[in-house]
Amino acid sequence: MGISLAGRALERGDWDLETVAIREFGEGRHRVVDDTPAGGSPGMVLRADVLARAIDHASPAGDERPRILLSPRGEPLRQPLVRELSAGPGVVLVCGRFEGVDERVIERRSLREVSIGDVVLSGGEIAALVLLDAVVRLLPGVMGNSGSGETESFEGDLLEHPHYTRPAVWEGMAIPPVLTSGHHGAVERWRQAESERLTRERRPDLWARYSRAR
Amino acid sequence: MGISLAGRALERGDWDLETVAIREFGEGRHRVVDDTPAGGSPGMVLRADVLARAIDHASPAGDERPRILLSPRGEPLRQPLVRELSAGPGVVLVCGRFEGVDERVIERRSLREVSIGDVVLSGGEIAALVLLDAVVRLLPGVMGNSGSGETESFEGDLLEHPHYTRPAVWEGMAIPPVLTSGHHGAVERWRQAESERLTRERRPDLWARYSRAR
Repeated sequence: MGISLAGRALERGDWDLETVAIREFGEGRHRVVDDTPAGGSPGMVLRADVLARAIDHASPAGDERPRILLSPRGEPLRQPLVRELSAGPGVVLVCGRFEGVDERVIERRSLREVSIGDVVLSGGEIAALVLLDAVVRLLPGVMGNSGSGETESFEGDLLEHPHYTRPAVWEGMAIPPVLTSGHHGAVERWRQAESERLTRERRPDLWARYSRAR
Repeated sequence: MGISLAGRALERGDWDLETVAIREFGEGRHRVVDDTPAGGSPGMVLRADVLARAIDHASPAGDERPRILLSPRGEPLRQPLVRELSAGPGVVLVCGRFEGVDERVIERRSLREVSIGDVVLSGGEIAALVLLDAVVRLLPGVMGNSGSGETESFEGDLLEHPHYTRPAVWEGMAIPPVLTSGHHGAVERWRQAESERLTRERRPDLWARYSRAR
């Protein structure tokens, strides 16, 4: 995170990060954290007792922060949840192995399963980075330009319109004339129409949601 | 990436990573890479000419590798695309700023827009990490246990069934008896039924796709 917006905000103290290594709560001299799956299958499963000890250390009973398990089985991470988390008291992120976490700890420690997308990752850590980056950029003081947090993709279920900047002509391609016309209303109408066109073409799922909401 | 599966595979030489800083291709003494959006709005736009120079350096004409722009407007990253990329000649990843990249460079340099999810990130770098981790773990030699690449979430459009491991009873909760019954067929049926139940309950979108494919 050192070179990112979130990393610089961490250095400034806009937010705070504490990491806990699950291995420190492992069993025996070798700090074992996993075991073979009941019923058999490849891969290993993170033990309920070990993970519960790590969670109880990071987030004792009474902690108001939501406990989120990054998991491909979870509810998809979307911008409304990102906003909810950024306005809340903080978050406890549990990074499991994707071969699996013992189901009982999910239930007993009220872990909310959240997925960053329908892909298989080698672990939850990169998914946690995605969630942190999305949440931290909405914290007060983090974004230099306060306006740009509001007008981006997914805030209104539409994809973002095309962007252009100088040079006015590049490799024979000009910026669309409406954008340099100085007519603010025409610019807004063009952008809205382009956002709608792109959403319709690329993301029928978002388009259906947008159409229903209108 | 140093501590991840992909990072260890990079050290072993299972794959290779070359990074290019767009700023090195910036304009003038200050290496400017962005400018204000045509038509006005908050945020800055990455210049087409600057980004094209960086891309042409990293991926000259004739390069067979797909050029992917990590972008919230792109097609959602899913496991079939991950598999396709892991079997291909490599990939050129372009990490833009999410305020926007000049549309003309997307068109002229044939950038394929890929999104890792419907959230707004501070930049494309973390999205690139997600894609790399997902792709690299499928490369030959990277996964220690070759079996576990095949049986995971999303390979069959179903979410993964619950996992359990020792201890047999934890905080009063026992492992479901079928998993310790030794009846392989019964275990498989239970897992399939649980996967179907979870998918139906949590992801009607995946469930619809799965039901159609059967």
